[in-house]
Amino acid sequence: MPDLLEYLDAAAARFEEELCELLRIPSVSADSTRRDDMHRAARWLHGQLQSLGLAAEVVETAGPPLVYAESAPVPGAPTVLVYGHYDVQPADPLEAWLTPPFEPTRRDGNVFARGATDDKGQLLTHVKSVEAWLAARGPLPLQIKFLIEGEEEIGSENLERYLVDHQERLDCDVVVISDTSQFGDGYPAITFGLRGIAYFELRLTGPNQDLHSGVFGGAVVNPVNALTQILSQLIDTSGRIQVPGFYDDVVPLSERERAEFAGLPFDEAALRAQLDVEHLAGEVGYSTLERRWARPTFDIHGIWGGYQGEGGKTVLPCRAGAKFSFRLVPNQDPHRVAAALRPFLTSLCPPGARMELVEMHGAPGVLVALDSPFMTAAATAVERGFGRHPVFIREGGSIPIVTRFKQVLGVDTLLLGWGLEDDHAHGPNEKFSLADFHRGIRASAWLWEELSKIRT
Amino acid sequence: MPDLLEYLDAAAARFEEELCELLRIPSVSADSTRRDDMHRAARWLHGQLQSLGLAAEVVETAGPPLVYAESAPVPGAPTVLVYGHYDVQPADPLEAWLTPPFEPTRRDGNVFARGATDDKGQLLTHVKSVEAWLAARGPLPLQIKFLIEGEEEIGSENLERYLVDHQERLDCDVVVISDTSQFGDGYPAITFGLRGIAYFELRLTGPNQDLHSGVFGGAVVNPVNALTQILSQLIDTSGRIQVPGFYDDVVPLSERERAEFAGLPFDEAALRAQLDVEHLAGEVGYSTLERRWARPTFDIHGIWGGYQGEGGKTVLPCRAGAKFSFRLVPNQDPHRVAAALRPFLTSLCPPGARMELVEMHGAPGVLVALDSPFMTAAATAVERGFGRHPVFIREGGSIPIVTRFKQVLGVDTLLLGWGLEDDHAHGPNEKFSLADFHRGIRASAWLWEELSKIRT
Repeated sequence: MPDLLEYLDAAAARFEEELCELLRIPSVSADSTRRDDMHRAARWLHGQLQSLGLAAEVVETAGPPLVYAESAPVPGAPTVLVYGHYDVQPADPLEAWLTPPFEPTRRDGNVFARGATDDKGQLLTHVKSVEAWLAARGPLPLQIKFLIEGEEEIGSENLERYLVDHQERLDCDVVVISDTSQFGDGYPAITFGLRGIAYFELRLTGPNQDLHSGVFGGAVVNPVNALTQILSQLIDTSGRIQVPGFYDDVVPLSERERAEFAGLPFDEAALRAQLDVEHLAGEVGYSTLERRWARPTFDIHGIWGGYQGEGGKTVLPCRAGAKFSFRLVPNQDPHRVAAALRPFLTSLCPPGARMELVEMHGAPGVLVALDSPFMTAAATAVERGFGRHPVFIREGGSIPIVTRFKQVLGVDTLLLGWGLEDDHAHGPNEKFSLADFHRGIRASAWLWEELSKIRT
Repeated sequence: MPDLLEYLDAAAARFEEELCELLRIPSVSADSTRRDDMHRAARWLHGQLQSLGLAAEVVETAGPPLVYAESAPVPGAPTVLVYGHYDVQPADPLEAWLTPPFEPTRRDGNVFARGATDDKGQLLTHVKSVEAWLAARGPLPLQIKFLIEGEEEIGSENLERYLVDHQERLDCDVVVISDTSQFGDGYPAITFGLRGIAYFELRLTGPNQDLHSGVFGGAVVNPVNALTQILSQLIDTSGRIQVPGFYDDVVPLSERERAEFAGLPFDEAALRAQLDVEHLAGEVGYSTLERRWARPTFDIHGIWGGYQGEGGKTVLPCRAGAKFSFRLVPNQDPHRVAAALRPFLTSLCPPGARMELVEMHGAPGVLVALDSPFMTAAATAVERGFGRHPVFIREGGSIPIVTRFKQVLGVDTLLLGWGLEDDHAHGPNEKFSLADFHRGIRASAWLWEELSKIRT
């Protein structure tokens, strides 16, 4: 496709500028004060897709809007649904960013901004490959549908509803998502497995007001003490989760899987250096890749209670809380986890404290078949875009919608990640390699080419 | 003293107005942005004492200033040192206050404001009794020295230095402090025992940045998980502190003490109702009063880490921290506690996490002799001021300076508390009964009378 590749070269600088435009919009879905920015981001994407001649629409929902667009059907060729999300994680802690999260900055071949890799930069590769195809080669060789949401980081509640209500419109042969990572720099990857998640908020209340810890300490439940006691009992020191029945549905790793993971060029020392930790940690009896990709975990995402300011306040706080989640492996059900967790927490809650457990969001894990023609086409496209055959990996994160696409639309998802593991998704100084941005666009263009060869 | 009591009646409304003036000054010592307010509070008190004809001085320190004042020596009569503090606890959580913490509001016979009972209201009773004595009866019958600091809530570091450097100036026969509570409404009390304290801040660091909990969860130490594990191991479910050697210096409660505590009219159901808890809690094998007054405790005052905002952020935080303290009983040494705590925490800190322990402040507990003429005089004064003979109690809070007065000046302290246990010291909606304010002034005036009878 020399004509198309030439177009991409000529448009490279403009594509980067357009990515920065999108990154400047602080579309933080968890922040209810950002509603206008959610709409701005949706309208920006809508404008892009409409200008390509696609039938594009901003779909209002009870939350941030969806953006939907589609090209014309191509008889005999497959229909592909490209999914992405324009919402981003909160940017705090702000003081840890070298440059402001919503002022995209180019440094060392990367663009630094919240959402650079997750998912604005990766999502945009598919928009730009379509633009290039249409400009350089004419009509698309297959039907492409875009479905872009603004609630991925907070549970996709409204997308879920839209998906169920618009199955005909979203009908397709395969879904494509670029919201994952390469295995490492120079190791493009296709992700065939994801962990699920069950996310909770636990709130504890003790006395009806903050008390003087001298006057009342030792005679009344301290909710912060209680919270540490409860949370510490959810996992043991060997990294085993203690919720009764938690491992019942966990399928053990096969010897073949363990051998394949062990064969990947994973550099544990480099990871330690990257994170600046003397030791990695985790469940006893499993390798680091196994722990990250294929074993359940328990992580507290946030904890609060009492006095967090300067100096020493001798208060006995009246409430405390925490947000935490379990990462689940395929075959575990987040609803079963929640059902087992609630009575377990209740049993751990000391008399004199009151407990409230909020089920925030959940999704089961997923495994995609490796032997389909779609997967073969994707591998070829990635190899052409990145110059190297992809490795097949699993990833520890969750993309709940992948499960729902399977359940509702009956199709598999190709997880083609252009990011890198040290892109700091969800952390300060999130970045995306501009070289990978352009490689991703090329791979995406090749993907349309390869997928269009599949006869349906 | 009919002349004096008449004066007090006539001045009552003005005294309340003046108390409100002092309460309007947000002299929060833990908040470094409040330095000007600390000086304003000190100057206000200095103005009061100077207007009484006392030799008064604002003493600058490295922190908030001290206020010192003294009346003329009275040969043959004792010298009494009145100690108090004009600094207050932080007012947060602000949203829990029914009326703003620094806009004193009268309701149901109380004044509501941060510092109302702790310690501005109680302290002012002694200033006003001196005013009344001087106006109604002439020269004071004994020498009174006032020593008022602005760092009681954060460890009295500069008062400590001043005390050591000015022992001659502060020379006295007995110290008087009103910074405690009555046993209950209608039960005026003299407190003869206080708990000590050892206050710490623990900070944990894991990876060098916040991480995506899906990508890294299960493979690297989560400092919030680690913090809950560590803190939960400092105390067991029976309320026993687990720091090695912690109980070595604890003198067991005698059968007589236990019997005396048990004989006090303590209403546990009323306390549960006051705090709105179904159950009280604490160390197994001890009564509620024993737990609060005479047993060590462990309370977490504040905890933080990760995402505390709205919605669900799937972050693996890079740091976490907590403030906590042990309340100590007489004979326990806060330095020994700190020395035992540090290696214990180090042993609990998992590989891959780094720990920093800050020793914030500490003080041993204290017991005051019940059989001195000063105590007898105080009991008479309290009975005359409140119309009922005081009960002799201990209190769970710490007034570290009481120990230092004994160590440096060689004198006992009379802890004459005019407050009530439900005054919400350190919490929102702190209050002080205006009736007790006036009773306290009367008791203070009687105290000068009774103490002056002691020949030295």
